[in-house]
Amino acid sequence: MAITLDIKQYMASKAEMVNKRLKELLVREDEYPQSVHKAMHYSLFAGGKRLRPALALASSEAVGADCAKAIDVACAIECIHTYSLIHDDLPAIDNDDLRRGAPTCHKAFGEAIAILAGDALLTTAFEIMAVINMPSRVFGGGLPSHVLSGGQTDNGRALQVISEIARAAGSVGMIGGQVVDIESEGKDISFPELEYMHIHKTGALMLASVRCGALMGGASDEDMIALTRYGEAVGLAFQIADDLLDVEGSQLAMGKHTGADRKKGKATYPAIMGVQESKRRATELADRAISSLEGFGNGAGALRSIAAYIVSRDR
Amino acid sequence: MAITLDIKQYMASKAEMVNKRLKELLVREDEYPQSVHKAMHYSLFAGGKRLRPALALASSEAVGADCAKAIDVACAIECIHTYSLIHDDLPAIDNDDLRRGAPTCHKAFGEAIAILAGDALLTTAFEIMAVINMPSRVFGGGLPSHVLSGGQTDNGRALQVISEIARAAGSVGMIGGQVVDIESEGKDISFPELEYMHIHKTGALMLASVRCGALMGGASDEDMIALTRYGEAVGLAFQIADDLLDVEGSQLAMGKHTGADRKKGKATYPAIMGVQESKRRATELADRAISSLEGFGNGAGALRSIAAYIVSRDR
Repeated sequence: MAITLDIKQYMASKAEMVNKRLKELLVREDEYPQSVHKAMHYSLFAGGKRLRPALALASSEAVGADCAKAIDVACAIECIHTYSLIHDDLPAIDNDDLRRGAPTCHKAFGEAIAILAGDALLTTAFEIMAVINMPSRVFGGGLPSHVLSGGQTDNGRALQVISEIARAAGSVGMIGGQVVDIESEGKDISFPELEYMHIHKTGALMLASVRCGALMGGASDEDMIALTRYGEAVGLAFQIADDLLDVEGSQLAMGKHTGADRKKGKATYPAIMGVQESKRRATELADRAISSLEGFGNGAGALRSIAAYIVSRDR
Repeated sequence: MAITLDIKQYMASKAEMVNKRLKELLVREDEYPQSVHKAMHYSLFAGGKRLRPALALASSEAVGADCAKAIDVACAIECIHTYSLIHDDLPAIDNDDLRRGAPTCHKAFGEAIAILAGDALLTTAFEIMAVINMPSRVFGGGLPSHVLSGGQTDNGRALQVISEIARAAGSVGMIGGQVVDIESEGKDISFPELEYMHIHKTGALMLASVRCGALMGGASDEDMIALTRYGEAVGLAFQIADDLLDVEGSQLAMGKHTGADRKKGKATYPAIMGVQESKRRATELADRAISSLEGFGNGAGALRSIAAYIVSRDR
């Protein structure tokens, strides 16, 4: 699948929109106590591609809405993704010292602040989602009133989004996948265990991004069925592609030490089913994601391109 | 202030109610992956007194509601409190190996699982609050449908509660206080810094417990003003009393190594203003909390007794 310039431009423009909004939503980095706020900003603005936010925004467009409807949920999801990276990098977990070409959060700020900055990003994500519809500040210190958008979705939908994202990020979602990943290190694991790990560790939050972007855009039940198929397929495709990049990619392109998975004896797709079969499976999943969008018109163009982009070599 | 048997009975009966409900709300400990679920249950059911839930339940009673209206929020707050204990005990933060008379979570399950179990408890708290009003399961795997209570509060109120609790638990609340606590170790800190630390580290979540219990009970704006005064006072009183117990309490009564604060060079009330002045201030704050409830009738009896209980020696 060829990647056009268009999708890279699309991703870049959405990333800019997300970065701008995140700066409005987050507590400023010079706010007391500064260390934790600096650490939160450091990791959040470390040059991530904002793939999950792009999925949420593209998904709201696919159901015919302005992507602005999903921007706050997209930002909340990126906070959750970033917290998970900070905690995964900790010495007690993956013990990585490099992330996106820069020192990991605990290398830059120490372990204690890194743990707490991760906790704070996770907590902030839920505050952001809870105030989406709120007409005014509460508790004498909520988010600045200018960031509050006015009643563009109903409160029931906001609660549904919070519960879906919490579940996707929790112990039977992303955290569950991370636990299995840790516990599988240096062991032979079965293919079902590998797939559980991938579907949960990466797939659950990507699926939630697609679903919740669409929910904020006012998706119909029928839309949601198709988009759930899309989200499941791209989530797994992404993780297989990530495993492949770890084997094949250069350190420069990845911004972290590659081959790290193999060194730690981590279970990966290429390790279990070989590079060629992994590539075939990733491409098949991207194709399946795209074909699940058959009922959608041009508004789903970005989602289609993102599926192709995810399994490409130059992402 | 004499503590009657009544308040201990009250606390015990609320703790039983909370424990029963937590077992319904939490993912079972034998669910895959078991390590993280076992760690979550281990720390959550380690014999905590459920003070914050008791405050939330008593607060809903104070505004004339059945405390059942606040039970899920009370459980969510206890999940957040427990996650904060797990992360605070980690080697990189307070490095404690004993909590409530038993090995801390990372001593029992290892650091990686302790970090992730804390993350999962925090995440679960928001899922619990988001589904309070939800009529049916979402995302093909939500909480069991029998635990969903039916529309007893409006969705806007549930979102307000989520945003208040997120803010109270976040980087300008509990986490902010913990950061200042860590950074003050071994240093001379000023009294304003000490009070910031106490108000945020412990006070913010206790205030949120009082306020959100009342919100779930349908409190009026006038009620909320009085209860906010109450919550601020008990939050600070509790932390001063806790500092005093660390200095004076026996290891048996505390279930952890006492004198630990002094050993780490931590800033405490007794260290800065002496034991007698600290006791005087704690009692004054408890009195202030009680007098802020003057406009309330017998329904606020439990809140009044909790304020006295908090500064007593035998809690």
